[in-house]
Amino acid sequence: MHNMKRVLLVITITLLCCIQAIARQATWIWYPGDFEVWLGNKMQNRRTERGSFLPPFWKLDSHYNLIDFHKVFDLKEAEEADLFVEGEYNVKIDGKALFGYPKRISIPAGKHRISLKVFSQDRVPAIFVRGKQVVSDSTWLVTFEDKEWIDQTGKVSDQSATVWLNAGNWNFNDPAAAPSKFRLPVQPMQPAASEKTSDGTLYDFGKETFGFIKLNGVEGSGTVAIYYGESREEALSKDHGETIDRIDVNFKEKRDTTIQLSKAFRYVQVVPSTGVKLAPVSMLYEYADVKDRGSFTCSDNQINKIYDVAKYTLHLNTREFFIDGIKRDRWIWSGDAYQSYLMNYYLTFDSPTVTRTLLALRGKDPVTSHINTIMDYTFYWFLGIYDYYQYTGDKTFIRQFYPRMQSLMDYCLSRRNANGLMEGLPGDWIFIDWADGLSKQGEVSFEQLLFARSLETMGICADLVNDKTNAAKYKELSADLRTKLFSYYWNDSKQALVHSRVNGRQTDNVTRYSNMFGIFFNYFTEAQKQGVKKNVLLNDKIQKITTPYMRFYELEALCAMGEQPLVLKEIKDYWGGMLKLGATSFWEEYNPNKKGAEHLEMYGRPFGKSLCHAWGASPVYLLGKYYLGIKPTSPAYATYVVEPDLGGLAWMQGTVPTPNGKIELYCSTKQIKVKSDEGNGTLRFKSAKKPVSKNAAITDKGAGIYEMTIGKGKEYTVNL
Amino acid sequence: MHNMKRVLLVITITLLCCIQAIARQATWIWYPGDFEVWLGNKMQNRRTERGSFLPPFWKLDSHYNLIDFHKVFDLKEAEEADLFVEGEYNVKIDGKALFGYPKRISIPAGKHRISLKVFSQDRVPAIFVRGKQVVSDSTWLVTFEDKEWIDQTGKVSDQSATVWLNAGNWNFNDPAAAPSKFRLPVQPMQPAASEKTSDGTLYDFGKETFGFIKLNGVEGSGTVAIYYGESREEALSKDHGETIDRIDVNFKEKRDTTIQLSKAFRYVQVVPSTGVKLAPVSMLYEYADVKDRGSFTCSDNQINKIYDVAKYTLHLNTREFFIDGIKRDRWIWSGDAYQSYLMNYYLTFDSPTVTRTLLALRGKDPVTSHINTIMDYTFYWFLGIYDYYQYTGDKTFIRQFYPRMQSLMDYCLSRRNANGLMEGLPGDWIFIDWADGLSKQGEVSFEQLLFARSLETMGICADLVNDKTNAAKYKELSADLRTKLFSYYWNDSKQALVHSRVNGRQTDNVTRYSNMFGIFFNYFTEAQKQGVKKNVLLNDKIQKITTPYMRFYELEALCAMGEQPLVLKEIKDYWGGMLKLGATSFWEEYNPNKKGAEHLEMYGRPFGKSLCHAWGASPVYLLGKYYLGIKPTSPAYATYVVEPDLGGLAWMQGTVPTPNGKIELYCSTKQIKVKSDEGNGTLRFKSAKKPVSKNAAITDKGAGIYEMTIGKGKEYTVNL
Repeated sequence: MHNMKRVLLVITITLLCCIQAIARQATWIWYPGDFEVWLGNKMQNRRTERGSFLPPFWKLDSHYNLIDFHKVFDLKEAEEADLFVEGEYNVKIDGKALFGYPKRISIPAGKHRISLKVFSQDRVPAIFVRGKQVVSDSTWLVTFEDKEWIDQTGKVSDQSATVWLNAGNWNFNDPAAAPSKFRLPVQPMQPAASEKTSDGTLYDFGKETFGFIKLNGVEGSGTVAIYYGESREEALSKDHGETIDRIDVNFKEKRDTTIQLSKAFRYVQVVPSTGVKLAPVSMLYEYADVKDRGSFTCSDNQINKIYDVAKYTLHLNTREFFIDGIKRDRWIWSGDAYQSYLMNYYLTFDSPTVTRTLLALRGKDPVTSHINTIMDYTFYWFLGIYDYYQYTGDKTFIRQFYPRMQSLMDYCLSRRNANGLMEGLPGDWIFIDWADGLSKQGEVSFEQLLFARSLETMGICADLVNDKTNAAKYKELSADLRTKLFSYYWNDSKQALVHSRVNGRQTDNVTRYSNMFGIFFNYFTEAQKQGVKKNVLLNDKIQKITTPYMRFYELEALCAMGEQPLVLKEIKDYWGGMLKLGATSFWEEYNPNKKGAEHLEMYGRPFGKSLCHAWGASPVYLLGKYYLGIKPTSPAYATYVVEPDLGGLAWMQGTVPTPNGKIELYCSTKQIKVKSDEGNGTLRFKSAKKPVSKNAAITDKGAGIYEMTIGKGKEYTVNL
Repeated sequence: MHNMKRVLLVITITLLCCIQAIARQATWIWYPGDFEVWLGNKMQNRRTERGSFLPPFWKLDSHYNLIDFHKVFDLKEAEEADLFVEGEYNVKIDGKALFGYPKRISIPAGKHRISLKVFSQDRVPAIFVRGKQVVSDSTWLVTFEDKEWIDQTGKVSDQSATVWLNAGNWNFNDPAAAPSKFRLPVQPMQPAASEKTSDGTLYDFGKETFGFIKLNGVEGSGTVAIYYGESREEALSKDHGETIDRIDVNFKEKRDTTIQLSKAFRYVQVVPSTGVKLAPVSMLYEYADVKDRGSFTCSDNQINKIYDVAKYTLHLNTREFFIDGIKRDRWIWSGDAYQSYLMNYYLTFDSPTVTRTLLALRGKDPVTSHINTIMDYTFYWFLGIYDYYQYTGDKTFIRQFYPRMQSLMDYCLSRRNANGLMEGLPGDWIFIDWADGLSKQGEVSFEQLLFARSLETMGICADLVNDKTNAAKYKELSADLRTKLFSYYWNDSKQALVHSRVNGRQTDNVTRYSNMFGIFFNYFTEAQKQGVKKNVLLNDKIQKITTPYMRFYELEALCAMGEQPLVLKEIKDYWGGMLKLGATSFWEEYNPNKKGAEHLEMYGRPFGKSLCHAWGASPVYLLGKYYLGIKPTSPAYATYVVEPDLGGLAWMQGTVPTPNGKIELYCSTKQIKVKSDEGNGTLRFKSAKKPVSKNAAITDKGAGIYEMTIGKGKEYTVNL
C-alpha cells in the first residue's frame, strides 16, 4: 500500500508560548527525556559485584529511536547552516527532502520550515544545526510519531493529532562533543601512602574517592588483581571485598594501563601474579563538574567539618545522576535521589542533574512497577517534582512531562484497595527504612501520607497545564486521603498517627515515619504537632532511627518545630560520631552502639555497607534551610523567607543559591546581615530587645518576632 | 541505598505446561517479540525516495535492553557449556555469579538453575548456550523486570510478581550467526538485455526483481548515477523515477562495487559522469528463503500464468516481513500483511514470517495510535491473529502475546463514541480502500464490522488463556456490536448494509466493503446474503473496486456464495489484463480504463504506483481456498473440509500445506483424488450422478451433495 509523505503543518501550540527568547547558541538537541533515559541505562549498567556485571533488576526503558525535529525560521537574508547528526537522517526544507545525508544546507531568505528526521537505535537521535540564525536549541519542536498522511490524490489528512514537544538539550554546545560521547571529566591523583602486603601493595588515597585505577609501568605476563576498599579492612580482604578487578597483562615492555570501569575506594590492594611487575599505581579521579553555589561556616568547628564532609559526600554521589552510593549500587534510587535534590538546592542548585535524575527514574510508559519497585519511591518522585517546581519555577519541565506524571499517578490510583488506600500488592516493595522488624503489612500510614502529598503535587501540576478536570480530581482525591489519614490512623490517646491498619483495624504500633513527615508537610493542627513532638519525636520508647536516610526527616521535623539547638547537638553526636571513627565521607547506616569492623557490615556481608552514601549528606540541607533559614515561599523564590536560627551557635554565615543568583546571610547573636539577588523576601527573626536597622523598616510581629522586607541587591544590616 | 540480589525462585507457571518436549538443538534465544521489533526497525528504515532517507511516520518501538534468562536443569552428570552472548552479561549458577564474562561454564550433576542477565541497547539481548543437556531454546524463561529483593538482613521478598515468558527464537542455530547479523540471502543475476541511452546504459533484468546493483569494473573519478525503474519509462526518467542512487567513485584501477541498499526494479539506467568508465552491471538478487509448499495447476493456461506471477509477486514481497510493495514503502502495513498471511497459508505456510510480521506491527505498549495510524489496520491485526490460530493452532503464541492483544483492544475500547461505535478521532486514519470520493465521515459500517470480528478474536484468545472474566466481556461486546451493526446499518429496502451513519442517521450510500466482509464472516442470514449478492456484489451501480486489495475480498465473497465460475472470469479479466500489459508482477492498483503510461501514475506522481504489490497476489489464496476448496474448520486442521469447485475448469490439481504436511487434490469433471497428511477431513462435492469410490464410503447429503471422510495418509479416488 500507500505512499506517505511528511506534511507541512505549521502547528502553533500553547507550549511554544512559554519558551522565552533564547540566545542563538547552537546546541545538541533531542527528544526531551531521551538522553536522560539512555545515559541512565549506561550508568546503571556499570555496577559490578566482585567482578561480575550486576545490572538493575527493574525494567530499563529506551529512547525513541525515530525522531522528527523541526522549526520555522523567518530569515532576513539567505544563509548556510552546518548539520551534525547522531543517526541516519533526512533533511527537508519546506517539506522537500534533500538528496542523501547533507552536511551543509542553504536556506533562502523568508519564512522556511527546516525539518530533520533521525533514526538511531544505539544512541539517542540528536542534531546540531549551526547557521547564523538557523541554530538548534530548545525552541525546536520534536515528536516521535506524526499522524499525517495523504490519500492517493495527494490530499493531506485534515485531523492532526501529532504532539510536538520542545526539544531537550543540556550543555552540548560543541558539535564535535556529541551526546553519545558524554563522559564525566577526570583528573590524575596520587596515593597518599602505601605499604607492602603479603603478596602486593596497599595504597591509601587518603580519603574516600572515585575513579579509574591506573597501573603504571606494567611489565611481564600474568594477571594483576585489584582489591578495592572503602576501608583498609575491605581492601585487605581478598575474599570479601565488594569490588575487585583482575586483568590479564602480557607486556614485553613497560606500559601504563588504566582500568576500564571507575570504582569507589579509599584503599586499593594491588597484587600482581608472579612474572608481573609494576610501579606504584595512581588514579584518575572522576567527577561531575558542578560548582558549589551555597556555603556554610559557623563558630563551631566540628559543624564546619561535618558540613565539609557532607558536601564532599554529596559531590561524590552527584555524578551523571544523583546516585545512592558510589561503591555498590551505582543505580538511581528515587528515595535517595529525593534527598539529593533537596541538598542540591542548598549547595549547587544544579537543575540539570535534578531533571536528569527525575527523567531517568521515570523512564517511559507503560508503568509496570513502582519506581525501583518501591511504593514509597514512586511517591518521592512526585515529591521531587513538587520541590523542583517550588525551588526553580520551571514550568516548561512540568508542561513537557505532565503526561508521564499522569500515567505514573494512574498506575498508583489503579492499585488502591477497596478503602482507597495503598497497600502492598505482589511485586510492591514497601521500603520506608532499614529498621529491624518494621512491619510492612496492611495499610501503612506512611505510604498514605506520601500518596496524599503526591496527589497534591498532581493538583498543582494539572493547574499549571490548565488541565482543569484533572486538577479538580487530584485535589479531591488528596483532600479525601488526608481526611482518611486522620480518621484511620490518628490515635487520640497516643497523640500520634499509628503505623498501620491491618484488616481494617488500627495497629498499636507507633513509628516515627508518618509522624515526622506530617510535621513538615504541615498536616497537623498545632495541638497535634505538640502531641507528636512529645509522644513520638522526643520519646525514646519509640523505635530509634539508625539510617542517615530517615535521620534527615527526623531532624527536619524537629527543626520545623524550632528545635534547632537539639538538632545541632544531634548532628554533632551522630555525624560527629562518624567523623570520630575516621569517616571521610558519610555512611549508609551508622549505629553508635556498634564497634570496630561491625560498622562495615551490612546485608550479612562483612563489607556490605556503603561508606559514602548521598543520604549521609543531609547537614548540607538542614543547615541551609533551618539554620540560615532560607527557603522559597512561592515558586522560584518569587517570594521567600530568611529565618535565621543559630540554634546555639555564636555566629554563622552562608550563601543559598537561587534561580537568579544567591542570598547571603551573616547572623550572630548581635547582628544579622543579608543580601539577596531576589526581590520580595522576608527576613524574620527573634530578638530579645528591639532590633535596629540603618537601612530598612522593621515590623514588630509581637512575641519577640520581627520582620523586614528584603529587596534585591541591597545589603541589609540589623543590630539586635 | 540498598543491596539488591537476584533471587532464586523456581517459579512454576502454567505457561511451562504447554511447552512440548523439544529436541536438544541449541539456538539463539531472546525476549519474545524483541528480535521482531528490532528487525522491523532495521527494515522499515531502508526506504528511500529519490535518494533521501524516508522512515515511517508512526512510532517505532525498541527491544527491552536488559533481559534475564534462566532455566533449571537436572543433570545426570556434570557437563560443560559454551556461552555466546549479544550484549554485556553475567552468568549465575544457582544464584551465584561467576567472575567476569565467562565463555565456558561447568555445571555439576544434579538440579541447577542457570541464569544469564544481558544488557544491550543497539541489538537485542540474546544468548546461545551449547552444552550436552544445557542448551538454549524456547523452554528457557525470560523477563525484562524481576520484582525480587532482599532486605538489610538478607531476607528475600515473599511476594513475587515477576512475569516469565518463554524465550523467543527462530532458526539461529549457529552460534556464529548471531541474530544481530541477520541478512537475507543473495544470488548473483545478470541483465537480460541492455541498450544505450543518451548518456548511459539501460539494463533490463527481464522481470520485476529486487536486490543490490553491482557496478563492475569501475574506473576513474566522478559519480555514477543509477535510475531504477519498475517500468522502462521510469528508469529513463531521470527527474521523476522514485528511486535513484548516486555514488562517488575514485578508482585508479578497475574495481567492482555493490550498492549498499537493495532496491526494486526491472530496469536500471546507469549514467557515469565524464571520466568514469564501467563494464555492464549485474545484481545480487535478495530474497527470503521460504519454500513453496502449496501448488496449483489447471486446464486453463492463463490461470496457470496468473498463479505463477501471483506466486512470484508474493515471494518478492515476503522478505524479513510481509511488506506491501518492494519499490516504495518497504514498510509493514497491517492491512496488506493480513492478505499475505492468508496467501501464505496456501503457498509457503511459513509461520515465522506471519508471527514476525504480527509482532513487528504490534510493537510495544503504550499504544499511542492505531497500527500504521489506520483504524482498519488495527482490526486486521486482530483478524490476523484469528486466522493464524485457525490455520496453525499455535497456542503458545496466543498465550505469550495475549497481554499485547489486550492493551491494543483497550485502546480501541477507550476510543468508542457515545453509541459504542468507532468513529475517526483526530489522528485516526480511516482507510478502507483507495477509492474516489469514499466517505470516511461519521460511523462507518465497515469499521464496526471489523471491530466486531476483532472482539470475537479476543473472546477466543481470552478463552485460550483461561481469562474467563474478559472472555465473557469480549463476547458480550462483540455480540452487542453485531446487533448494532444490523439495527443501525441494515437497510431493508436496499437489502444491504449502508456505508455509514452521520449524526446518528443512516446515509443513503451503499458500498461493497461491509457487505462483502459480512458474507465471508457469515454475519448474514441466508436471505440477507442473497439480497447483498444481488443488490451489491452483482450490482454495477455500486461503486466499483479498482484495487487488487479490495478485489481480494470482493472475489472471496463471491466465492463464498458459490460464484466460482464468475470469479474465474473476473480473475482472467483483471489479473489477465495486467499480464496483457506486460506485468511480470501484480500491481498496487489496476484500472482497465487507463491507457499506456497512465498505468504507472499514482499519488499525483508519474511513477508513484507500485508495480509489485503483495495484495496483487490474491489468486494464490482464492484458488487454494475456493477452487481446491481446502480449509480448516477447527484450529490447526484438526478438522477440515475439501470442497473442490472447478468453476468451469476442466481439471485442476494442487497442494495445500498444513501443520503436519499437506493435502493433495486432483479434481476433474470426472474424478476427484485426494490425499492428506491430516486426519479428520471431510471431502464435500457436488455430483450430477451417484459417485463411486473403491476405497471409501460416500454419504449422500441430498441436493446432489456428497460427503466422504478423509483419513490420514491414504489416497482416495472418487469417480463422478
